[in-house]
Amino acid sequence: MPILCRPAVAVPEYTVSLDETLALARELHAEHEHLPLVLRLIKNTRVTRRHLVQPIEDTLRHPGFEARNLVYVREARARIPAVVAQALVNADITADRIDAIIYVSCTGFTMPSPTAWMINELGFRNDTRQLPIAQLGCAAGGAAINRAHDFCLAYPGAHVLIVACEFCSLCYQPADLSVGNLLSNGLFGDAVAAAVVRGDGGTGIRLTGNGSRLVLGTEDWISYAVKATGFHFCLDKRVPGTMEQLAPELRAVAAEYGWNAAAMDFYIIHAGGPRILDDLSHFLGVHPDMFRYSRATLTDYGNIASAVVLDALRRLFEAGGVRDGAHGIVAGFGPGITAEITLGSWVTQAPSRVAEVPDFAVKEAVP
Amino acid sequence: MPILCRPAVAVPEYTVSLDETLALARELHAEHEHLPLVLRLIKNTRVTRRHLVQPIEDTLRHPGFEARNLVYVREARARIPAVVAQALVNADITADRIDAIIYVSCTGFTMPSPTAWMINELGFRNDTRQLPIAQLGCAAGGAAINRAHDFCLAYPGAHVLIVACEFCSLCYQPADLSVGNLLSNGLFGDAVAAAVVRGDGGTGIRLTGNGSRLVLGTEDWISYAVKATGFHFCLDKRVPGTMEQLAPELRAVAAEYGWNAAAMDFYIIHAGGPRILDDLSHFLGVHPDMFRYSRATLTDYGNIASAVVLDALRRLFEAGGVRDGAHGIVAGFGPGITAEITLGSWVTQAPSRVAEVPDFAVKEAVP
Repeated sequence: MPILCRPAVAVPEYTVSLDETLALARELHAEHEHLPLVLRLIKNTRVTRRHLVQPIEDTLRHPGFEARNLVYVREARARIPAVVAQALVNADITADRIDAIIYVSCTGFTMPSPTAWMINELGFRNDTRQLPIAQLGCAAGGAAINRAHDFCLAYPGAHVLIVACEFCSLCYQPADLSVGNLLSNGLFGDAVAAAVVRGDGGTGIRLTGNGSRLVLGTEDWISYAVKATGFHFCLDKRVPGTMEQLAPELRAVAAEYGWNAAAMDFYIIHAGGPRILDDLSHFLGVHPDMFRYSRATLTDYGNIASAVVLDALRRLFEAGGVRDGAHGIVAGFGPGITAEITLGSWVTQAPSRVAEVPDFAVKEAVP
Repeated sequence: MPILCRPAVAVPEYTVSLDETLALARELHAEHEHLPLVLRLIKNTRVTRRHLVQPIEDTLRHPGFEARNLVYVREARARIPAVVAQALVNADITADRIDAIIYVSCTGFTMPSPTAWMINELGFRNDTRQLPIAQLGCAAGGAAINRAHDFCLAYPGAHVLIVACEFCSLCYQPADLSVGNLLSNGLFGDAVAAAVVRGDGGTGIRLTGNGSRLVLGTEDWISYAVKATGFHFCLDKRVPGTMEQLAPELRAVAAEYGWNAAAMDFYIIHAGGPRILDDLSHFLGVHPDMFRYSRATLTDYGNIASAVVLDALRRLFEAGGVRDGAHGIVAGFGPGITAEITLGSWVTQAPSRVAEVPDFAVKEAVP
């Protein structure tokens, strides 16, 4: 069965602390009627620091959608190669053995997708399948894992690279003044993450099954308004409440495999915000400490969108992983509202099945 | 093996003929130094008529990216349901038996993707996998078929719905005056297409294998510039020349299965423009008439982006299909430059494998 290997994650060098964020909110929105509420909500995120691809002064300026999207491309090209190289090393694999690249990002838009650039520049074969996903938002990290899993089921022995490139600071919209927007301005951060799903061999989460669930009737609760100024994030305050509906869905997906979602050995949950984690642990009946890796991501980096689940998993690896055979669940949440749910068990040094690697997986790159 | 069933295609009620297009070019670009060349290129497309979601007067106005994208959403919601319903009827299946929706479109952008709306409104189960792809352009029709194929390989018996929704007229940019742009203004049309890939049963193309190929070093040849005014299509005149490089790739993918790409019984090729079809038939060594379904799509509808291959396949069905067991190839081309290649053989009324349908495929919709 395919194995999700150790992710590589990089956050940019510019940062903004919680205190700086609060000071900025006080300064920029001194006259806002809900300023006290906004400050309280930002404090409650417990996000101590976020990382940005540009200094905060540049982040706060809006140079237009075109210029911003060019910054996205420039920073993606500057920051993706090292993260991808580390993810490949972590999985003990080389670029020319990757059969598909799943690129997820909702904070910039390009056509062709960066997958074409990666194939041209980073040593991937020209027959690598390209799967760029821009419209699943924060759920795309989970979706990428699940679609990689599916690809490896379709082609046993194939290897898939996942890249999540999220520069949320490039979606900052200074004119958006709803409480949800001002909260978001204190919540989201930038990061690049990558991980390989190996079709054989490796250490990490052996993928057992996956499922996707839409919470009906919540399509407008997390969305983009697409404008001349770019993507405007719209967040409904009812979003955390959907955890009450998603907890039974997690249980249902786990039950399909005879597992109990309330009694997993590890949890890698999308850290959309503190209440997402609090409410899910409540409705799932799981001790809050079981979500510690997600909470650490949120505290250290903020909500880094589709990269959250990969960063939380990186932290599980850094903590030494878990015992072989331990059961776990990965869940990404995002617009739809959609949950992308993954079940897997920990494995250390799964055997390589070299003899069975199919022809297309060892094909030489066409020059 | 999975079967790509009969596509449903709808084109909008507003139209613009070749003569009207030429008259508009003469009127709008009377002073353009390359007007004679532009008129000749547009005539050479042999596109006799294109369909538009709005009257030509509204099409020529640019009301801003935000307003245009709202038109995209409005028209998508108005036009998708009937096409999807027909595609389901064509495949003798109901919405609640669909396990994944692959939605491809490069001419509007929404988050969440229209897949969320479809699940909410069109009777799909809330555990339907959502795979929206916005960044593969015209190649996305082929990519959708190939990813649907992969999904059915991963989950035997699963059924996948493909929707290609392309309103190219909403990407008309009146200020873009390069020869490539003026040609594009006479080339692209609007359409909605849908088809089901059944995991069992059905009539159509039994999917044998698929492959993706990137032409190295051509990343900038077909691309979007993303601006405050929306997506600006950039087309390099060297694009048709890539058929010389892609013909051997089609041969290579076919050869992996012991097939000869030059001697197929049917061809469903992306009709990007007349030279794409001419050059590919030349370099592949195939009689031009073998591409007649693609040519008919181009003539009747223009280049309808990711919907081309589905419409060309619809025409093959309407012509009565081919004999059972006949071999064919489907090829979508788009930015990257990427070719998405599908191999399959015609089958009439493949047997249903009800007894083997896995649990998740027959699950009831969660209300």
